[in-house]
Amino acid sequence: LDKELHRLLIPLDKEATVIVAVSGGADSTALLLACDELVLASRLNWRLVVAHLDHRLRTSSKDDAAWVVQLVNKLGHEAITRAVNVRKLAKEKADNLEQCARRARYEFFADVADETRASLVLTAHTLDDQAETVLLRLLRGSAAEGLAGIEPVRPLSENSDVLLVRPLVSWARRADTERYCRLKHLDFRTDEMNEDQRLARIKVRKQLLPLMQSLNNRVVEALGRSAALLREDAAALASEAERLLKKASDSHHKGRPNKLEIEVLAAAPPAIRRRALRQWLLQNVGNLRRLEMVHFLAVEKLLQKKSGRTVELPNGIRVFRQRDWLQLSVKRVEKGGFDL
Amino acid sequence: LDKELHRLLIPLDKEATVIVAVSGGADSTALLLACDELVLASRLNWRLVVAHLDHRLRTSSKDDAAWVVQLVNKLGHEAITRAVNVRKLAKEKADNLEQCARRARYEFFADVADETRASLVLTAHTLDDQAETVLLRLLRGSAAEGLAGIEPVRPLSENSDVLLVRPLVSWARRADTERYCRLKHLDFRTDEMNEDQRLARIKVRKQLLPLMQSLNNRVVEALGRSAALLREDAAALASEAERLLKKASDSHHKGRPNKLEIEVLAAAPPAIRRRALRQWLLQNVGNLRRLEMVHFLAVEKLLQKKSGRTVELPNGIRVFRQRDWLQLSVKRVEKGGFDL
Repeated sequence: LDKELHRLLIPLDKEATVIVAVSGGADSTALLLACDELVLASRLNWRLVVAHLDHRLRTSSKDDAAWVVQLVNKLGHEAITRAVNVRKLAKEKADNLEQCARRARYEFFADVADETRASLVLTAHTLDDQAETVLLRLLRGSAAEGLAGIEPVRPLSENSDVLLVRPLVSWARRADTERYCRLKHLDFRTDEMNEDQRLARIKVRKQLLPLMQSLNNRVVEALGRSAALLREDAAALASEAERLLKKASDSHHKGRPNKLEIEVLAAAPPAIRRRALRQWLLQNVGNLRRLEMVHFLAVEKLLQKKSGRTVELPNGIRVFRQRDWLQLSVKRVEKGGFDL
Repeated sequence: LDKELHRLLIPLDKEATVIVAVSGGADSTALLLACDELVLASRLNWRLVVAHLDHRLRTSSKDDAAWVVQLVNKLGHEAITRAVNVRKLAKEKADNLEQCARRARYEFFADVADETRASLVLTAHTLDDQAETVLLRLLRGSAAEGLAGIEPVRPLSENSDVLLVRPLVSWARRADTERYCRLKHLDFRTDEMNEDQRLARIKVRKQLLPLMQSLNNRVVEALGRSAALLREDAAALASEAERLLKKASDSHHKGRPNKLEIEVLAAAPPAIRRRALRQWLLQNVGNLRRLEMVHFLAVEKLLQKKSGRTVELPNGIRVFRQRDWLQLSVKRVEKGGFDL
C-alpha cells in the first residue's frame, strides 16, 4: 500500500497543510499511517491535520473519536473533531440520513480546511467504495455523471481552491487497507452499522458484489474501469455542452445566458443538448433541486415548434419559447428560500 | 402489448418485406402475433417472413423448428429455417459458444433478408434482455458503447440498407410477452437452456437481477434508462471523434486518413481522442480483433513526446511517431487472413 500511495501522493504539493479525514476504520487509518510515514521520511513536507466527525449515530461513536485523537497524538499530528447529531439534523431537514451525514461531513472538512488554511483534503475511499457507488447509481438508472462514481480529484466545493483527493479510490481494495493496518500492528475501529443490511450500501457490499464476484472475480476492478471511462466521457460532454451554451447564447448579453437560440440547440446531439440545458438552468436558478429527468425532457420538447410554448418547473421556474429563443423566468419562492 | 407495439411499428415502412426472427419463445411468438394482427387489420402492408435458426444445441431443437413452421403456416406467412451445429462450429473456430451462436443467427438473418429482399429485420429482445446485457457488460468493465446495451435500431450490418429493429427492447418486460401469448391462447416453447445457471446470462437473470430488484423494484427499467442515456452519449462522442479525426488528418490525403497530427490529438479530451484513435485503427486495419484497452493506452502514450516512438500491436499492426505525425503500418498476416 505505501509504495503505490507514495507514488500517488508525491506529485502533490510538497509543502502544504493537508487534512486527512479519519473515521477510525481500516481505510482511513491506513491512509493516515501511510501519510505519516511519508512525512516521517521527509518525502513530503506536510503539516498533517486529522479531521474526525462524530455522527452520533451510535453510542460507541464517542469512543471512536477518542481512539482517533489518541492515535493522532501518538503520531504527533493535530486532530480536530466535531460532533453532530446527524439523526436529529436529518429529521429537522426532512432529509435522507446518509445524505445528511455526508453533507455534515464535507461541511466539517471545509471548515477545518478554512481554519487551518489547508490546500488538500484526503479521504480514504477505496476501489470497493467506488464499485458500491457505481452499483448504487446504476440501481437508480443514473446517467454517465452518476455512473462515473467517486471522483479521485475535485475541488472541495465549487470555486474552492482546496482540492479534495481520494488517493486510494482508483486501485486500493478495502482488504489492502486492513492488511496494511495489521502489518503495522495497528488496530482499527469497526463500525457496526457496516453490518446493517437495511442500508442499501451494505446490502450492495455484502450480497450484490459477492454474487457479481462469482461471475467475474475481478468485478470490483471492472466497475472501477467503467467508472473511470465514463468520467472521461462526462468531462468531454460537459465541455461540449459548455461550447454549445456559448454558441446558443445571445451574443449581446453579458454574464450568464438568459436566453438561448432554439435553432442552435435543436441541431445539437441530444446528449450535449441535455447537458447544456441543465447547465443553463443551474446557472440561472442556482440549484437543480427537485428537477428530474421528466422536467428536462419537457424543456427539450419545447424546442419542437409544434409543441406547447411554456413549461412550468418546480421551484417557481418557468421556461418558455419566444420566437426563436428559449427563455426562463424564476419566481422566487418565499418560505425557506433556496438551498445550494 | 399490441397497442404499444402498433404505435412503434406504424411509423416504419408501410409496404415492406419484413423478417421476424422467431425462436418460439414467448418474446418472439408475441412479436410475431402482434405483427400478424397489424397485417390482418391492414394497418401495415407487410409481407411477413419468419426466420428460425435451429442451433442444434438441444435434442428438442428440431421440435421447436417444426412448431414455429406450423404456427407460421397457420397464420399464413412464410417461414425460412436453417440448422447450424453451433457447438461444432464453435469448436472449429475456437470461439465462445454464445458468441458463435449469435454470429450464426445474424448471418442467417442477413441471408434471409437478402433472399427475400427484405428491408427490415425484427427481433424480440425485451427490456429484460437489455437489463441483462447491461449487467453482463458492466461485469466486464465496458465503456459507454458496451453499457449502452442492445440498440433499438441499427443497420443489420455495416453499410447495409436493411434495418435491424428491436421494437420491444425499450419498454416490454418478458412477463408482458408471456401474458400476451396466454391472452391470445397461444402456447410458446421454453428453452431448457434458460435454466442452465452455468451460463452467465442465466445467472444474471435468475440471481443477480432478482437481488437488485430487492433494492429497487424497478431496476430493470432503471438499467434501461441508463443504457438509453449512455447510447446518446456514445453517439455524441462518436461524432465528435469523427470530427477530431478529420481535423487531425493530413488534408492533402484522400480517403481514409493514414497519418494524424499529434498536436491536434494531444489537445483533445481523452474520451474523444481514444474513440478517434479506435476509429482510425478500424478504418486502416479493417477490424479491431485482439485489440484491448492496453493497446489503445499504449498508442495514446505515443502522443507524449518523451515516450517511445513505436508501438507493436496484435495482427501485425505497428503505430509509430514520425515528427509531428502519428502513422500506422500493417503487416498482412498470411494464415487465415482477417475476419471482419
